[in-house]
Amino acid sequence: MLDTLFSPQSIAVIGASRTEGKLGYAVLANIIQSGFSGAIYPINPKADEILGRSCYQGLDEVEGEIDLAVIVIPARFVLDTLETCGKRGVGSVIVISAGFRETGHEGLMAERKMAEIAQEYQMRIVGPNCLGVIDTLAPMNASFAVGMPPQGQIAFMSQSGALCTSILDIALAQEIGFSRFVSLGNKADLNEIDFLQAWAEDPESKVVMAYLEGIADGGRFIDVARHMTKHKPVIAIKSGSTSAGSRAVSSHTGTLAGSERAYEAAFKQAGVIRADSVGDLFDLSVAMARQPLPRNERVAIITNAGGPGIMATDAIERCGLSLASLDQETREKLRQVLPSVASVLNPVDVLGDALADRYQAALQAVTADPHVGALIVILTPQFMTEIEETARAVGQVAEGSDIPVLACFMGEANTEPGAKILTDHNVPNYIEPERAVAALRAMVDQRQWQERPPPEFEAFDVDRERVARIFEQVRSDGRLQIGDAEARDILEAYRIRIPASKLCKTSDEAVTFADEIGYPVVMKIASPDILHKTDIGGVRLNIEDASDVRDSFDLLTFRAVRYMPDAAIWGCLVQQQVRGGKEVIAGMNRDPQFGPLVMFGLGGIYVEVLKDVSFRIAPFSRREANEMMREIRSFNLLRGVRGQARSDIEAVADTLLKLSQLVTDFPDIVELDINPLIVFDEGRGTMGIDMRLVLAP
Amino acid sequence: MLDTLFSPQSIAVIGASRTEGKLGYAVLANIIQSGFSGAIYPINPKADEILGRSCYQGLDEVEGEIDLAVIVIPARFVLDTLETCGKRGVGSVIVISAGFRETGHEGLMAERKMAEIAQEYQMRIVGPNCLGVIDTLAPMNASFAVGMPPQGQIAFMSQSGALCTSILDIALAQEIGFSRFVSLGNKADLNEIDFLQAWAEDPESKVVMAYLEGIADGGRFIDVARHMTKHKPVIAIKSGSTSAGSRAVSSHTGTLAGSERAYEAAFKQAGVIRADSVGDLFDLSVAMARQPLPRNERVAIITNAGGPGIMATDAIERCGLSLASLDQETREKLRQVLPSVASVLNPVDVLGDALADRYQAALQAVTADPHVGALIVILTPQFMTEIEETARAVGQVAEGSDIPVLACFMGEANTEPGAKILTDHNVPNYIEPERAVAALRAMVDQRQWQERPPPEFEAFDVDRERVARIFEQVRSDGRLQIGDAEARDILEAYRIRIPASKLCKTSDEAVTFADEIGYPVVMKIASPDILHKTDIGGVRLNIEDASDVRDSFDLLTFRAVRYMPDAAIWGCLVQQQVRGGKEVIAGMNRDPQFGPLVMFGLGGIYVEVLKDVSFRIAPFSRREANEMMREIRSFNLLRGVRGQARSDIEAVADTLLKLSQLVTDFPDIVELDINPLIVFDEGRGTMGIDMRLVLAP
Repeated sequence: MLDTLFSPQSIAVIGASRTEGKLGYAVLANIIQSGFSGAIYPINPKADEILGRSCYQGLDEVEGEIDLAVIVIPARFVLDTLETCGKRGVGSVIVISAGFRETGHEGLMAERKMAEIAQEYQMRIVGPNCLGVIDTLAPMNASFAVGMPPQGQIAFMSQSGALCTSILDIALAQEIGFSRFVSLGNKADLNEIDFLQAWAEDPESKVVMAYLEGIADGGRFIDVARHMTKHKPVIAIKSGSTSAGSRAVSSHTGTLAGSERAYEAAFKQAGVIRADSVGDLFDLSVAMARQPLPRNERVAIITNAGGPGIMATDAIERCGLSLASLDQETREKLRQVLPSVASVLNPVDVLGDALADRYQAALQAVTADPHVGALIVILTPQFMTEIEETARAVGQVAEGSDIPVLACFMGEANTEPGAKILTDHNVPNYIEPERAVAALRAMVDQRQWQERPPPEFEAFDVDRERVARIFEQVRSDGRLQIGDAEARDILEAYRIRIPASKLCKTSDEAVTFADEIGYPVVMKIASPDILHKTDIGGVRLNIEDASDVRDSFDLLTFRAVRYMPDAAIWGCLVQQQVRGGKEVIAGMNRDPQFGPLVMFGLGGIYVEVLKDVSFRIAPFSRREANEMMREIRSFNLLRGVRGQARSDIEAVADTLLKLSQLVTDFPDIVELDINPLIVFDEGRGTMGIDMRLVLAP
Repeated sequence: MLDTLFSPQSIAVIGASRTEGKLGYAVLANIIQSGFSGAIYPINPKADEILGRSCYQGLDEVEGEIDLAVIVIPARFVLDTLETCGKRGVGSVIVISAGFRETGHEGLMAERKMAEIAQEYQMRIVGPNCLGVIDTLAPMNASFAVGMPPQGQIAFMSQSGALCTSILDIALAQEIGFSRFVSLGNKADLNEIDFLQAWAEDPESKVVMAYLEGIADGGRFIDVARHMTKHKPVIAIKSGSTSAGSRAVSSHTGTLAGSERAYEAAFKQAGVIRADSVGDLFDLSVAMARQPLPRNERVAIITNAGGPGIMATDAIERCGLSLASLDQETREKLRQVLPSVASVLNPVDVLGDALADRYQAALQAVTADPHVGALIVILTPQFMTEIEETARAVGQVAEGSDIPVLACFMGEANTEPGAKILTDHNVPNYIEPERAVAALRAMVDQRQWQERPPPEFEAFDVDRERVARIFEQVRSDGRLQIGDAEARDILEAYRIRIPASKLCKTSDEAVTFADEIGYPVVMKIASPDILHKTDIGGVRLNIEDASDVRDSFDLLTFRAVRYMPDAAIWGCLVQQQVRGGKEVIAGMNRDPQFGPLVMFGLGGIYVEVLKDVSFRIAPFSRREANEMMREIRSFNLLRGVRGQARSDIEAVADTLLKLSQLVTDFPDIVELDINPLIVFDEGRGTMGIDMRLVLAP
């Protein structure tokens, strides 16, 4: 995929310039300097030669095939040029030129046209408004970046061209290598999903690193990422999350589910690891590019200083990893090679006077321990410390080990040469133990994600047609909001249990039904003419026996007639009155990027005051539904605490899955709340008491 | 204070060595190389001259005064040498030698002896087992560190000598200056509190930076720090917090209040800013050393790239700062100096092609805006970016501005020269916007802390004697646990309201009392012989009227006699039955380092399942009690949500303050829980229903 973009045989630079300091010059210079071995065609009608290369008046003058064209001309000429490229059979185009979507409506329209051209000629377009594309393997630097990163195993894409320049500048200083490096620009044609797909099968890219501001098609992003992250880590910054989350929406779900929540859920479901900052992005990506994934979550520490060992231990405990207990055999080996006062427990303290050989012996013993999942080696530059020799020892042991070894040489002025040696041996180095631990945490997460079976989406045998008919009716009435009887019908159609109820025409019928469903029951006057039943005393609760049913029937009809003598009285609605159980809320709000965002929380104060809720994008699997429930802090209340029975958690999972199916089946549901959903004790199921639903206009 | 340590006129190096690679050589070499201008006396009985300085056989050979002695000899000779120093009138001693507390009991005893010697001769001792002391102002490097940091305004102390070497190495590379630099070692005499006191009034130290593992005297630490942080920021790493927190203690308070909670509370009450890592420690300290505190919490951003501007905005929102709204006038100024498509709202986007002059114009406009509290300037190294010129512009504007200016030059290879220029102009530079924002957050906290009035500790008019008598009685009974009637007496003595109750001998007396306090009441059989009253049916709840009181009196005495015919029956305890209100818990657990750690939380699941609790070290002020309550997530339940009345929050504060007074008055209380404490609606107070208390053995 995208072969003409990443491994072109020939590149045309449309807008190549003779003037140093111009982008059209920088791009051409970069292509030449990067050592690109294919044909290079500078296009500039006014020049004969630039940088020693013959110029062409236009594309038609070029005789050979053109795999890739880089466009660096004013925005107003771009569309015509793209047409020309399409006709000429160019494979891919990078539009560096700015002046499109970011300048207003007209620019947006031009981008739509670009997408059409791309479609028409089966020609893929990067940009516009981008820095360009770098491929260190080709090698090819088709960008106006200052410098070319070293070759490596990280594929990077960024929605911000400026951030590309920062990432590149940091990578140059820290010798961080890339395979591909893409500035996405305005994404008129190619977007993040296309590159995820391209890199999923790219043997040169071991890790994908991304900076994203928005995602074009949330659902597809999850689908594509979910598959590729099973064998290749994707680490991403998503910025702009807080301000976007401030949109005020009316329902519970809405208020709590900003776009930030949707991204959080989506990344979790797609196995995308979220980085919090550029530093974090590098920390995690470099660790995964250079070292194998941990065998398990138990970490060993080797250090020449107590304090930093404690700092690492604190960080390990805080992030949910654990300190490895070293094998008896390992401890004996360590006792042989370390001074008697050194600690052979984890953290292994080789002491402040440790030379490289002592580090090496400890490293060998610990990496051979079958219980250890990963190793962090800490060095402080003390009086006798052999920084470079120790770095070499760490590198050699790491190369021969199948667990990840991360270094933490805490220093800068004197430790720098050691850090370089570590890099040469592919050992990631962190200035602080906390950062090494954070990288390990992400690696353990990645390992667990890879081992997890792919999600299975269950389909319940529901009555989809019935819901479709209700929606049709509602729309034909000119309504968008649904509650009451229609809501109950929808829940029933999707096999979510609701209280038994029946419209009874006579008191005999009411008694028969109440006897059947059991007491207590609720009775409501049924009349199309009486809307506010409670106001006229048309609702009775806690009806405990047959005689009370008869009395209530008479009382309710009497009051209805007294209130409105001409009212059509259909009878009374007799409904099971639910007792016991716990209240939870299951809701949904349609996120503009990811679609149906389903919420779960315990009812009442837990949602309203404590905001103790969790989210997933529908559709989700049973496992995800279970994790979703367990994410809320108050989950233990469902598991049964203080002598209470365990709630029917499995039935809640079922309900969430049915809700997921409903909102996936009907994309025109924009908002929905089942509140309360009653969860009974284990084995006794759930029951939806009230539901409201809003359709898209 | 500590003048002979930091500004000595003469230094003796006891154990000066001729052998390069030995500590006794390194220390002497460092003192000489640091440019120390006073007298230097190398002491070594076997050498005539070291590093061109005449050697002395012993201290007695030295003729002049000796302000400071540095001891670098084997541990077994140290105590005798200290005695000699004391007799000789040495002012301060740095014991670099190791082999004390860290090797076992004997070493600990030797350290106790050291403290005695220090006391006897009024001679202060740093160490043992330390790296030494550096003073860049003297100048004097009395340590075996590799290198001397530049002069600056940060005073640093560390409990880990190894970490000192890392801090120093990073400082050397990043040109971070220090005033004083102290390796605390085992703290046999001088500890963190002594240095806080010394640096509180040190005009050369603007910021104190510390790495701590344990604190000698928690109470005094809070007292001393609380005062000095009012005019000088103290930023500290406290490590070893998680593992220490794992001690399992029995009561609610105990289980929830690990040592970590105590540190958190203590740092908060002392105004000490906690850093999470070495990087964080530097980030915050450098910002406060180089820039003024923010005017307010509203931050302006100037950037040449949209993406990083969004990242900064996200970070600002997440940490509770806010984006400044720029003045109309500022926006107009910006409109004049920026291209028309640039954003003049905050973040101010000077666009990717901004040269230094455009940055400068924007900087001048924004720093002149009276609404802006602080400024972050972001630069990505784009094609046209003038890194060094822009750094100079930032530096110049920052120097003329009274708000803090923090830079975020995102890069490394090409931005490095710019970073150096920023350092020359005292502008802190961060590679990531998130780190600049974290520094600003700490600066705003410091500003708010400084503006806050000092805490006032209220004293309620309590009956301390009564409690002392109860404790005496309990101890003389050989008991340590207190509950029931004694617990009620204690609460009453400290003016914490309890349900009205009376031991009534007859049913008439019971009726009279019940009529007086109002119904419902609880009645309990009162007999010294019947311990498990509930088991024999000796407790009745919900007694609603006089006749029920008579029936209950007869019933309870009948049952008591039936159960134990010989029991001494005193009558019945009649107690007010509390209805309404909300349950909270107030507890205390004595922390080994900080003493009385008071806990607050909502009763039941909030404490047990949600662990929603907050802590303060007693004594604390009313303001701190109020903040303590507001820290719990469920606080809104007390403020009144969902149509409920507001609880009497002020009365809870009173109760917490009385509890604080009780546990401060009686240091032998090791554990205490008032559970539940009922809080009634606003204006109606609180009531302690049950209390248990444990005394120290």
